[in-house]
Amino acid sequence: MDAGMDTRTDSPRRWLGAPLEQLPTPALILDQAKVRGNAERMRERCRALGLRLRPHVKTHKTLEGAALATGGTRRGIAVSTLAEGRFFAAGGFDDILFAFPAQEWHLPECAALARRLQAFQLLVDSPRGLELLRQNPLPGGKRWLVWLKLDCGNARAGIRPTDPEALELARAIARGCPEVVTLAGVYAHCGNTYGCGDIPAVQDVARDTTKAVLAFVTRLRQEGIPCPEATIGSTPSCSHPVPEMSQLTEVHPGNYLFYDLQQTQLGSCRPEEVAIRVLTRVVGHYPHRRQLLLDCGWAALSLHGRDRGPPGCAAIEGHPQLRLVGLTQEHGQVEAVDGELDFQRFPVGSTLALIPYHACATAAMHPVYFVHAGGKVVELWHPTRGW
Amino acid sequence: MDAGMDTRTDSPRRWLGAPLEQLPTPALILDQAKVRGNAERMRERCRALGLRLRPHVKTHKTLEGAALATGGTRRGIAVSTLAEGRFFAAGGFDDILFAFPAQEWHLPECAALARRLQAFQLLVDSPRGLELLRQNPLPGGKRWLVWLKLDCGNARAGIRPTDPEALELARAIARGCPEVVTLAGVYAHCGNTYGCGDIPAVQDVARDTTKAVLAFVTRLRQEGIPCPEATIGSTPSCSHPVPEMSQLTEVHPGNYLFYDLQQTQLGSCRPEEVAIRVLTRVVGHYPHRRQLLLDCGWAALSLHGRDRGPPGCAAIEGHPQLRLVGLTQEHGQVEAVDGELDFQRFPVGSTLALIPYHACATAAMHPVYFVHAGGKVVELWHPTRGW
Repeated sequence: MDAGMDTRTDSPRRWLGAPLEQLPTPALILDQAKVRGNAERMRERCRALGLRLRPHVKTHKTLEGAALATGGTRRGIAVSTLAEGRFFAAGGFDDILFAFPAQEWHLPECAALARRLQAFQLLVDSPRGLELLRQNPLPGGKRWLVWLKLDCGNARAGIRPTDPEALELARAIARGCPEVVTLAGVYAHCGNTYGCGDIPAVQDVARDTTKAVLAFVTRLRQEGIPCPEATIGSTPSCSHPVPEMSQLTEVHPGNYLFYDLQQTQLGSCRPEEVAIRVLTRVVGHYPHRRQLLLDCGWAALSLHGRDRGPPGCAAIEGHPQLRLVGLTQEHGQVEAVDGELDFQRFPVGSTLALIPYHACATAAMHPVYFVHAGGKVVELWHPTRGW
Repeated sequence: MDAGMDTRTDSPRRWLGAPLEQLPTPALILDQAKVRGNAERMRERCRALGLRLRPHVKTHKTLEGAALATGGTRRGIAVSTLAEGRFFAAGGFDDILFAFPAQEWHLPECAALARRLQAFQLLVDSPRGLELLRQNPLPGGKRWLVWLKLDCGNARAGIRPTDPEALELARAIARGCPEVVTLAGVYAHCGNTYGCGDIPAVQDVARDTTKAVLAFVTRLRQEGIPCPEATIGSTPSCSHPVPEMSQLTEVHPGNYLFYDLQQTQLGSCRPEEVAIRVLTRVVGHYPHRRQLLLDCGWAALSLHGRDRGPPGCAAIEGHPQLRLVGLTQEHGQVEAVDGELDFQRFPVGSTLALIPYHACATAAMHPVYFVHAGGKVVELWHPTRGW
């Protein structure tokens, strides 16, 4: 025990410069070089396709992550909540797309953001959504910037491009009240890539989604309806883009900044590109049941992946012979895959790094991310949360 | 849109006094009368058994909830993390038991809490844990207050009371270094009640755990080892206590302040005693796939319960004909159980209340809890988080 250590404060700033092994556990740690590499590779991939990259920030929800992902421009992001919208606007970001169908109770905050920013953009997927905007014009000659949300097979929000009402809705957005609303583009999320078994299957979904979006844009143009932008998203599709995607104007993946076990299984990344870990310590040996106990439970990891077969919620880095078999709020239980656990290799107090199944869910559990380089903490990232 | 509304702030204080239906969604809401009733019933149950109640605060992590649960004394709680320890100590609480086996890297903060509080209590379940404390005496004549953690069938942390080393460890805590360490009592968590199918099965586990704890205490007394306290916990066992539990000195349940769907299924509470809901709104109708979309995803609910059969992560209050079939980060998908969804009953913008499967997990997702009475927000509770 270091009597000189300041134990009266819980400020994570005191860990700047500390070796990773000294961090209090559980702790979310990010490999700086890997995060930067992931950001750069996605930017390069988009450059090569001539696509604008609009990083979705919902995975990390940090100014630092979004600054990296935008290459420092702080322009052009997608957010999943109004809390993110407020946070990133206050943090100097602009051209923010609120990637959730806008609702009546969102409008006061959306209007405030639209007034504050050069470009605050909204999704609409129903005539009702458009009507709301028409009834609530922005002051000062500003217009609501609207993306028509298309459902190209993901079966969540969105209007199907094959639905005759989709064309009508696009026409109404573009022409129905040009002094109040502008059609910025069409937006599709190919979340159905997460159901794929391999890269070719992901690419089939990406190709189908792209074609559906582009066919819809072509029909709009044939009718003389201006629709400048077209975007699709999802980390699996954007990690192995198909050539057809170069005909879009932008893409909006998010998870790729961290990647995770699920993305590795989908083929989105190589295992060595996953930048996120939960650092944990062995807190007990229970040889009578051949288990180690860790100080990482679902409170630090989430239960995502539990029902997806081995290795479940997390893999244990460097130790494929170990598996996480149980998670309660603050405890994790570990066994050897073959039942024979070599306790001497894992003394109490030793650290293990868990590779989470779903980075978005794990990141949501942590008030701070410890970014490391050269084995030391070099940055702290502070996410926003809530709604 | 109310132009006079202050949309520049995200302070939840502006919602004090507001009708629930006006809250931004998703929102964690707590029924004040139900929370108070749950607190009072558990206190009454313990009074009737002559037991001290040491509420575990890990479910809610709020000063307000802990004040209620302690009947306003702010004395005698269990915490699951050092972050909770710091938070509750700073909030005026004392007699705090850190209910996680103490580790070397915990000691600086534990020492600070022990110096600050009249009673900061620790768990030890191994000779190594005791040795740590011996090597790190508290200054000023204070002693580490140690509870021996017993594993009476839960198979997580703890030493088995039937293990010959358990008696040796208790003896070493009580006598090995009396100027440094004091044996406060024995502590068991009967988390294995969560695997039970009904109240009699829960009571069997509670009875077995109580008997094992008491038999161990009897052996200690036979050897002249003072062990003043004995406690067991878990909301299922304490919601239907068995008479044998009156021979303990205290109990430490936590979830009961809110209860949830899982506790209802276990028989711990009646459905009308569950105090927690996630308020959400219908954000879209998708008749071609017979689905409603809600603005509540796993970010506001967690995925706990997904793999536990219907109704999964949450029930939809008052609408047993509906079920939640999908959760992504910010979206929930709802179908009719019989496939025939009456969309007119659930207009876009209407609110629904979700009864979460696991209150501890759902509460962990929210930065603020909106406490309501008479249909209006009357209090805001602010949880701590992290480690």
